[in-house]
Amino acid sequence: MKKHEIVEQIKAKSSFLCVGLDSELGKIPAHLLTDPDPLFSFNKAIVEATSPYCVSYKLNLAFYEQYGLKGWQSMEKTLEIIPKNCFVIADAKRGDIGNTGTMYAKAFFETYSYDAITVSPYMGEDSVKPFLAYDAKFTIVLGLTSNVGSSDFQVLQTNEGKLYETVLKKASSWGTPDNMMFVIGATKAEKFAEIRALCPEHFLLVPGVGAQGGDLKGVAMHGMNSECGLLVNSSRGIIYASSGTDFAEAAKNEAIKLRDEMKTYLTLNKII
Amino acid sequence: MKKHEIVEQIKAKSSFLCVGLDSELGKIPAHLLTDPDPLFSFNKAIVEATSPYCVSYKLNLAFYEQYGLKGWQSMEKTLEIIPKNCFVIADAKRGDIGNTGTMYAKAFFETYSYDAITVSPYMGEDSVKPFLAYDAKFTIVLGLTSNVGSSDFQVLQTNEGKLYETVLKKASSWGTPDNMMFVIGATKAEKFAEIRALCPEHFLLVPGVGAQGGDLKGVAMHGMNSECGLLVNSSRGIIYASSGTDFAEAAKNEAIKLRDEMKTYLTLNKII
Repeated sequence: MKKHEIVEQIKAKSSFLCVGLDSELGKIPAHLLTDPDPLFSFNKAIVEATSPYCVSYKLNLAFYEQYGLKGWQSMEKTLEIIPKNCFVIADAKRGDIGNTGTMYAKAFFETYSYDAITVSPYMGEDSVKPFLAYDAKFTIVLGLTSNVGSSDFQVLQTNEGKLYETVLKKASSWGTPDNMMFVIGATKAEKFAEIRALCPEHFLLVPGVGAQGGDLKGVAMHGMNSECGLLVNSSRGIIYASSGTDFAEAAKNEAIKLRDEMKTYLTLNKII
Repeated sequence: MKKHEIVEQIKAKSSFLCVGLDSELGKIPAHLLTDPDPLFSFNKAIVEATSPYCVSYKLNLAFYEQYGLKGWQSMEKTLEIIPKNCFVIADAKRGDIGNTGTMYAKAFFETYSYDAITVSPYMGEDSVKPFLAYDAKFTIVLGLTSNVGSSDFQVLQTNEGKLYETVLKKASSWGTPDNMMFVIGATKAEKFAEIRALCPEHFLLVPGVGAQGGDLKGVAMHGMNSECGLLVNSSRGIIYASSGTDFAEAAKNEAIKLRDEMKTYLTLNKII
């Protein structure tokens, strides 16, 4: 999927919502557990209920890997039923040297049909470049994350600015806004103006809204660019909105709530 | 596997060799490609030929993930045939916030019976801690890697020393030498004395010997502690020593060569 296609979807749906499919057996409604593939049944219902209101899905691979082969099967089947107009992210946080990076790129962009993968920048340019070789695919580099531990290294002052600033600057030079995005946590809304100065044209994947307490308004007002430039993720707040048989309806209602708020910011910023 | 058990194996085998199973269909001997599971056939032969001469195996997960479910099946079967006295590392370079980190830990330490997993430190303490909750398992944190891109961020001067030094210092305080190791590339042999000053008791996983040109002697002389404290990995140099029907014999001979050299350094350092 190319950047202009993401922007078209955002305009068409008045939404820059990404739904995070952090699906696990211990949290999905109990009545699904007797299905042959409960994770897939859950994901299918969530996707059918929410896809009119979001432009993207993010599959957190840890949740599938924990179940071994069965988890990978649930993931594969989920990929097949996500509508083609949605931007699908492998939240994998991979990153390894040259030939290994190439294998990961092949795994997620060829074996599976993901549009994007999250990668860690710690190993530097040759760990990110293999992912950039694909047309119409995006490499989403961790910048400033939403967790408490982001203060351990990401905000260290280096001789080239804070570490995450150096990451944004250097990584920007490896790719373009057409094949790279950055992860910036919603819990740091006050940072978005500075971040936009470093990467004005890149899309930012913003987790942390909902369960993690991030501020959608702050993110939208400081982080939006002329193409929107934001994909804001909510996982638990949507998919676990109800643990009853009405879980898909409840997820839909949460997605609509976020879409409605997002529509306001898209209108204020004259994007729609 | 506990640290003292790793040390016992090193003494018993006069070796601190880790064999990297970076197995891929395009590189294994052609005559195996008609087997029902060529990757597994290859790994089985390599493990049977090399296990008397090494103390550890490292499975680079990218190589298996690129083949989707079939790759994971080959990996599962490989885990089953590795002798129990070998320390088995998932070279996964994962790392994610709290609840996601917990899922990865579950995937590799419970669903699969790995002894250790490599993790990226970029997201900080709460991305590493979930892995430390397991007894007799090791979290191997990326410190200073062997690739060219390690110069992009790892050696940046921060207000607390170079970034990788800060990583070693902070991460050391999250765990102990009994549940944590660090990845330090063999291509940086001259750094090992400084690194030992920062983490004198931790085991170091050292990739980069062989195809990447690392210096085993330099690493051993500067990096060894009183328990050896090193696991030196070689992948391609061993497993692809021959592309003919003699591949297992050739791998065995390469492993013996490295074991013999390692035995010299273990003797010189009075460990055996």
